[in-house]
Amino acid sequence: METPENRDIVVAALKHAAPYIRMFKHKTFVLKAGGEIFANKESTRDFLEQISILHELGIRIVLVHGGGTQSTELATSLGMETTFVEGRRVTDAQSLEVATMVLNGQINTRILAACRDIEIPAVGISGVDAGLIRAIRRPPVDIEGHEAGQVDYGFVGDIESVEADVLRTQIASGLVPVISPLSADESGTVLNINADTVAAALAAALDAEKLILVTGAPGVLEDRSDPESLVSYIDLAGLERLHKAGSLAEGMLPKAKAIEAAIRGGVKRVHVISCKLADSLLLEVFTNEGTGTLVVENIDTLSPAEQAPGTAT
Amino acid sequence: METPENRDIVVAALKHAAPYIRMFKHKTFVLKAGGEIFANKESTRDFLEQISILHELGIRIVLVHGGGTQSTELATSLGMETTFVEGRRVTDAQSLEVATMVLNGQINTRILAACRDIEIPAVGISGVDAGLIRAIRRPPVDIEGHEAGQVDYGFVGDIESVEADVLRTQIASGLVPVISPLSADESGTVLNINADTVAAALAAALDAEKLILVTGAPGVLEDRSDPESLVSYIDLAGLERLHKAGSLAEGMLPKAKAIEAAIRGGVKRVHVISCKLADSLLLEVFTNEGTGTLVVENIDTLSPAEQAPGTAT
Amino acid sequence: METPENRDIVVAALKHAAPYIRMFKHKTFVLKAGGEIFANKESTRDFLEQISILHELGIRIVLVHGGGTQSTELATSLGMETTFVEGRRVTDAQSLEVATMVLNGQINTRILAACRDIEIPAVGISGVDAGLIRAIRRPPVDIEGHEAGQVDYGFVGDIESVEADVLRTQIASGLVPVISPLSADESGTVLNINADTVAAALAAALDAEKLILVTGAPGVLEDRSDPESLVSYIDLAGLERLHKAGSLAEGMLPKAKAIEAAIRGGVKRVHVISCKLADSLLLEVFTNEGTGTLVVENIDTLSPAEQAPGTAT
Amino acid sequence: METPENRDIVVAALKHAAPYIRMFKHKTFVLKAGGEIFANKESTRDFLEQISILHELGIRIVLVHGGGTQSTELATSLGMETTFVEGRRVTDAQSLEVATMVLNGQINTRILAACRDIEIPAVGISGVDAGLIRAIRRPPVDIEGHEAGQVDYGFVGDIESVEADVLRTQIASGLVPVISPLSADESGTVLNINADTVAAALAAALDAEKLILVTGAPGVLEDRSDPESLVSYIDLAGLERLHKAGSLAEGMLPKAKAIEAAIRGGVKRVHVISCKLADSLLLEVFTNEGTGTLVVENIDTLSPAEQAPGTAT
Amino acid sequence: METPENRDIVVAALKHAAPYIRMFKHKTFVLKAGGEIFANKESTRDFLEQISILHELGIRIVLVHGGGTQSTELATSLGMETTFVEGRRVTDAQSLEVATMVLNGQINTRILAACRDIEIPAVGISGVDAGLIRAIRRPPVDIEGHEAGQVDYGFVGDIESVEADVLRTQIASGLVPVISPLSADESGTVLNINADTVAAALAAALDAEKLILVTGAPGVLEDRSDPESLVSYIDLAGLERLHKAGSLAEGMLPKAKAIEAAIRGGVKRVHVISCKLADSLLLEVFTNEGTGTLVVENIDTLSPAEQAPGTAT
Amino acid sequence: METPENRDIVVAALKHAAPYIRMFKHKTFVLKAGGEIFANKESTRDFLEQISILHELGIRIVLVHGGGTQSTELATSLGMETTFVEGRRVTDAQSLEVATMVLNGQINTRILAACRDIEIPAVGISGVDAGLIRAIRRPPVDIEGHEAGQVDYGFVGDIESVEADVLRTQIASGLVPVISPLSADESGTVLNINADTVAAALAAALDAEKLILVTGAPGVLEDRSDPESLVSYIDLAGLERLHKAGSLAEGMLPKAKAIEAAIRGGVKRVHVISCKLADSLLLEVFTNEGTGTLVVENIDTLSPAEQAPGTAT
Repeated sequence: METPENRDIVVAALKHAAPYIRMFKHKTFVLKAGGEIFANKESTRDFLEQISILHELGIRIVLVHGGGTQSTELATSLGMETTFVEGRRVTDAQSLEVATMVLNGQINTRILAACRDIEIPAVGISGVDAGLIRAIRRPPVDIEGHEAGQVDYGFVGDIESVEADVLRTQIASGLVPVISPLSADESGTVLNINADTVAAALAAALDAEKLILVTGAPGVLEDRSDPESLVSYIDLAGLERLHKAGSLAEGMLPKAKAIEAAIRGGVKRVHVISCKLADSLLLEVFTNEGTGTLVVENIDTLSPAEQAPGTAT
Repeated sequence: METPENRDIVVAALKHAAPYIRMFKHKTFVLKAGGEIFANKESTRDFLEQISILHELGIRIVLVHGGGTQSTELATSLGMETTFVEGRRVTDAQSLEVATMVLNGQINTRILAACRDIEIPAVGISGVDAGLIRAIRRPPVDIEGHEAGQVDYGFVGDIESVEADVLRTQIASGLVPVISPLSADESGTVLNINADTVAAALAAALDAEKLILVTGAPGVLEDRSDPESLVSYIDLAGLERLHKAGSLAEGMLPKAKAIEAAIRGGVKRVHVISCKLADSLLLEVFTNEGTGTLVVENIDTLSPAEQAPGTAT
Repeated sequence: METPENRDIVVAALKHAAPYIRMFKHKTFVLKAGGEIFANKESTRDFLEQISILHELGIRIVLVHGGGTQSTELATSLGMETTFVEGRRVTDAQSLEVATMVLNGQINTRILAACRDIEIPAVGISGVDAGLIRAIRRPPVDIEGHEAGQVDYGFVGDIESVEADVLRTQIASGLVPVISPLSADESGTVLNINADTVAAALAAALDAEKLILVTGAPGVLEDRSDPESLVSYIDLAGLERLHKAGSLAEGMLPKAKAIEAAIRGGVKRVHVISCKLADSLLLEVFTNEGTGTLVVENIDTLSPAEQAPGTAT
Repeated sequence: METPENRDIVVAALKHAAPYIRMFKHKTFVLKAGGEIFANKESTRDFLEQISILHELGIRIVLVHGGGTQSTELATSLGMETTFVEGRRVTDAQSLEVATMVLNGQINTRILAACRDIEIPAVGISGVDAGLIRAIRRPPVDIEGHEAGQVDYGFVGDIESVEADVLRTQIASGLVPVISPLSADESGTVLNINADTVAAALAAALDAEKLILVTGAPGVLEDRSDPESLVSYIDLAGLERLHKAGSLAEGMLPKAKAIEAAIRGGVKRVHVISCKLADSLLLEVFTNEGTGTLVVENIDTLSPAEQAPGTAT
Repeated sequence: METPENRDIVVAALKHAAPYIRMFKHKTFVLKAGGEIFANKESTRDFLEQISILHELGIRIVLVHGGGTQSTELATSLGMETTFVEGRRVTDAQSLEVATMVLNGQINTRILAACRDIEIPAVGISGVDAGLIRAIRRPPVDIEGHEAGQVDYGFVGDIESVEADVLRTQIASGLVPVISPLSADESGTVLNINADTVAAALAAALDAEKLILVTGAPGVLEDRSDPESLVSYIDLAGLERLHKAGSLAEGMLPKAKAIEAAIRGGVKRVHVISCKLADSLLLEVFTNEGTGTLVVENIDTLSPAEQAPGTAT
Repeated sequence: METPENRDIVVAALKHAAPYIRMFKHKTFVLKAGGEIFANKESTRDFLEQISILHELGIRIVLVHGGGTQSTELATSLGMETTFVEGRRVTDAQSLEVATMVLNGQINTRILAACRDIEIPAVGISGVDAGLIRAIRRPPVDIEGHEAGQVDYGFVGDIESVEADVLRTQIASGLVPVISPLSADESGTVLNINADTVAAALAAALDAEKLILVTGAPGVLEDRSDPESLVSYIDLAGLERLHKAGSLAEGMLPKAKAIEAAIRGGVKRVHVISCKLADSLLLEVFTNEGTGTLVVENIDTLSPAEQAPGTAT
């Protein structure tokens, strides 16, 4: 990049990025990435290098990872079956065991090891660790239209409270917490929690500037069968409208709930971006247009000030 | 226990324990327990309740766990084979994957969950986390008497350095670190490390008062086939003598090396106790005789002052 | 105690004591002991050894001592007389001089010296020291039924306020304050204050977990002439009832007022125990039954949770 | 810049800049800029905006300004004359008065006001402020080849010591110190000091990563009459060679001494860049080639590690 | 002074001063002195030596200086004219330039240099420095009775807010801030502010014990033409009465407003003293009568306690 | 004092005192005063008021008191006898009891109470308190020329070490420690220690600026029978000369040893002044001549700088 023209481009780009950098410095971004990113070394590294840049620029990163695909794979090799209802996994004792090993063991460790390679000072933690997430086992729920009327999701937890001080201390020491979405109830029973839900709860508890959901889709789609129908900008009412119109695919339903929970909890901006588009994280943060969907509470009440350079990110 | 006589016994016992309590307050004990303790809920709970009492009495506990049995089990269910040489596991890529899931995922999480139940404020961590343990992959080693002359132990790490500040901060906050014996090299390759070795390195780095190895055997045996031949008290020279006499079983060899490393690193007392004897941990700490083997650097040079009440523990 | 059976007893006793230790750790106990305990070396030592154990277990101890007996003795050797009205000493200039020497000089110093022997890190202080207790001289009081109608108690102080920060700093540094019950008014006139009153005021100001009054009697008695009529458990209404029934001996009257003041000031539990029963302090703290009288605000409103293991102590 | 291609460029540029950002984070750069930059609002603003970006990226900036041109102008309006010897101004009482007003009053204030506009949290300070710079008045010096043999530079100071704690506190609070090159001796006589000399002394005292001299020339020139003869990379021996060859113009002589003083004082890299080239500061810091002259102690002894990406900046 | 009699006088004087010293220790005094004091070295030194004594006695000093005379002088040498309306200077672009150089450059530096001589640890600062004073340019104001109806005071600022933390940090470090009465608006335009106004705003923001205005007059006069008509003691109502009676000279008008602002802002005592009377500052602080005028909110509501030794100061 | 002339005197005196105030600010003075000062309220108050002024001026005061006279008096009222050898009291069990009551009880409390009146924030402490002074009982000593050859001084202690942190914490909190010269050995036996010796040991341990011994004599006398033969200024060699010449009276012998110990321990200046001369403490500190004797290590090696204003104090 070191031709004279390119050097000017570097400087121009830095000047372009400068107001974003100032705006986001010392702010907290909670990122949630599904297990598929971490299924191979290249996509893991590409993603973590973007995180490294955000971290170096002074943005405080909390990374929540999922692990559905890998859990299913391991369960399959062990001859077990997995059931999903409304986009949420049903977790019996055996599959909880598998999920624990995959989430806290395989994926979390893999991310930490890769962070070591690119010098991100990361620490692994899960909701089971002292005080981070207090959860209770979810009672069987009534599901409208479901054949049995009720579903027992098994060892699945609902979050009661979050003790964000643990994370705040780590963040303030310059560390990047890498969080596995498990917890336990007070009697020590391990519980599986949806990773989007965990990320939303942490973002609210940490008073995060942004919650960024990195998904397999390009963002929220107007028409779930048409990847070109990407919605760039939407608010909670709009999301509700899409839900009623049936535009939200099964996997998108818990995400929509998590997005709403985060925004109701005080997070100003939630982004849904694609894990397949190169550099999607940096593009979303440092350019005005972004690449995925931005969700806010209410589009109409945004003040003009909030629409100044960088606000649409 | 509330008959008048029993109440007097409680008081008498407290008075007996008082000098031990004073002596060990704010001191650090590094405990290493093999995976077998954590194979069922009862033995896990019995063990952690003893830790809880030590913790309440102001002793600073660091718990390192192993997981060999469980790794072998899982590997077997997945149709994999495990090789041991000189009491140390050979770790190929597949079995590293399994070990990672078992150690960082299954066992560590299980301990944290049980700690939650009995209100020990525990946090899970492994050597892969930022800065805790720096390791390099072990090069193939020459093994005298081994058929091939050399053994490549695979993804097995040798510790280069320990960054004990992470643990000191946790301990000072009243937390009990629960440590899984994995690390990674600088390029992010995960490495398996013998749990006794990890415990010894941490005990030295933390300037621990005691390293306590909780094993399947009653302690160090004069004659490995005779459980009655327990050695109560030995020093490094004595251990060397037993080694030469062939008294140290395969599983005891790496332990003997870890014991020596800890003592050379400044740890005054290393205890080997049985995980099968009820309350062995409390008995070892709070009574003069103890129940297992106590190893010191040199029995002869112990000053009389070190042989005052409690010193034999 | 080191037979195998006894060692099991030590462990059993520690397990019995563990929930109490956890419950009282870092809590503050204000103890008041009359001068008689400190009249000979053996009882002084027995008592302080119990305090040493509480201190080692992490309980924060504040010890207030009296000194009536010794003051009277010294006054007698100097040919002076002492007057009591309603269980409270009348203090003229000469007997104030004597009380000062006995309390701040003899007894306080004797306790500190004995603490040195058994390695309790104690510091002496009295209400005269900067800011600890602000008092004013008590005006002559109307005493119903008293011959003269009014009694001038002389150089006797009523507490106006307590500056507990001085003690908090000492306690937080791991010290045990040993407090002599004297103060001075703003013009520097030394004033004698009832030691029970001082202990109650300090317990309230320190938000103490317990106030423990160590007395010559076994506790509060239903019938003051019958030492077997010990009341194990009573509340403020019950105490009032006993007072009206004339069951409170002269020496017990100021104690009853102090107990009430402590409880009204927020102290949950006040204990009255005997200085003559061996180990009474440890028995009261670490067994469910205790040995003396426990006073609470209102027996009926105790929640079941407060009646869990240890609550009756 | 928000075409799709440009957004990719922004991201590519950030990735290019990332290793520089990591390398320079929390490092201190001492910048010295002559008064000519601050002679008009546009060049002031262009320069400060570059500083703002460095500051936002976590680089700690200390800015030393000169003011020769403006002093001369004001002196001229007041009908005074200015004398230079060997590139250094002679300062009589009247011209010291003028320099004080221009440096501490006009230029320093103008920079602070402009910083307010672009939100750099700047504070003005001079060596006269408590403890920053201790100086003594320079005695008349022998100048080889000078007609009178000796020159009395008047109220000109030589630095005796620097109390860098004042600056460290400001820097650690996130402030940007803007420093006027005046000081006073112990008797309170104000003294003028060459701004390059001040910058070099501060860079050494602050253990700065870089000293950057922003000048009217493009850098150090092989042939002072040929702006194309720019030397990109030189060491102290090379500088000495140029000096002997007469290549250093009068204004460059004190700079050469300051550069040497900084490097002897431990500053690794000194840069000489042009104030006339747009974005020269950012180009010098964030590209491998830079635009001006880089001076190091000894080119030959640079380790290969120091020649990794970014080292040539 | 070292005759035996004089030594007794020293001791007697110290005893006299002791209650004042106790009363004012760690309290903040904001002093405002006009530029005329700093016009020659002797009066500067006499004044600063008094400040040095206050500072050594533990009083926290903040010194605000003016500079009208010197600005006018310099403007005159440069051939410029100065206009005053209602005792306030009109500041055009050129005279702002002059005022900046005189205030931030000449006078502030001169004071700092003199402080260096008598070892007062002083630091210069102006409202332009990061965050100290936020101001906006004053819009043209209607002046009753003025010929044009409206006056545009030019680059004159009205204070919007004061960020006193900057000063508190300096004061807490034992420094004496020396403050030049300039600020800037958010766009970086430098603004001149009346020094009395600045001093009053800082005194209120710092919750100062006293604001002391050192002026050319002996204090507030009943009859502005008669220096003997000094008012020793007055309140806000009295000041208003004098204003209506036309007793306040032009230069005293902004002072009266500043005094009122300080008192409304919570400053208990404002003193107006003469810069011409030797030791007027020490006399005002350490004797009961003082030498100038003391202004309080309401004379009638002073409690007797406030009239104890020292209150009339 | 409020005539105009007197007000000028106050200011002149403050200016005279200013360099002393600056010199002694935050310095520690250890004062030792014999019990006779505290025998009546007037002399107690006169003395403490001088201390109050020093304290207000920022000097850190530690006051050690004796109590010989009062101990003898009380012993006499109790029908006991007191023996002295070489100016040091012999302390049997009974007289130790009396000394304890008088020192820790009567005198210490009396001083604290008087401090309360004049608002000195004083705290009482003795060497018995945790850690302050470690002492051992003095073995019988050979006394040249003594009839029995050996003297057993009884319960008299020799200082082994001083834990000055306790005092440093109190001093740093603005408190004035009032110290009774008792300690205890490790077994808790109370020991009497000469107050001059305690003061010297504390002065050395606290790195005090001055040790001031307030005595019944006007200072060190050339001829002990002639109060006019006061030595104003002497060094250790001179003191030794006086000792050999027999000029040191019995009571002065232990003082001479204490003075030497303090100076050998690093205290620069030891003063011996009279408790009978009004204001002797203030005169000694704030005037050049002083009133008693100043002892230094070696008069000849004082640098001229040390003889600047104030050095003779």
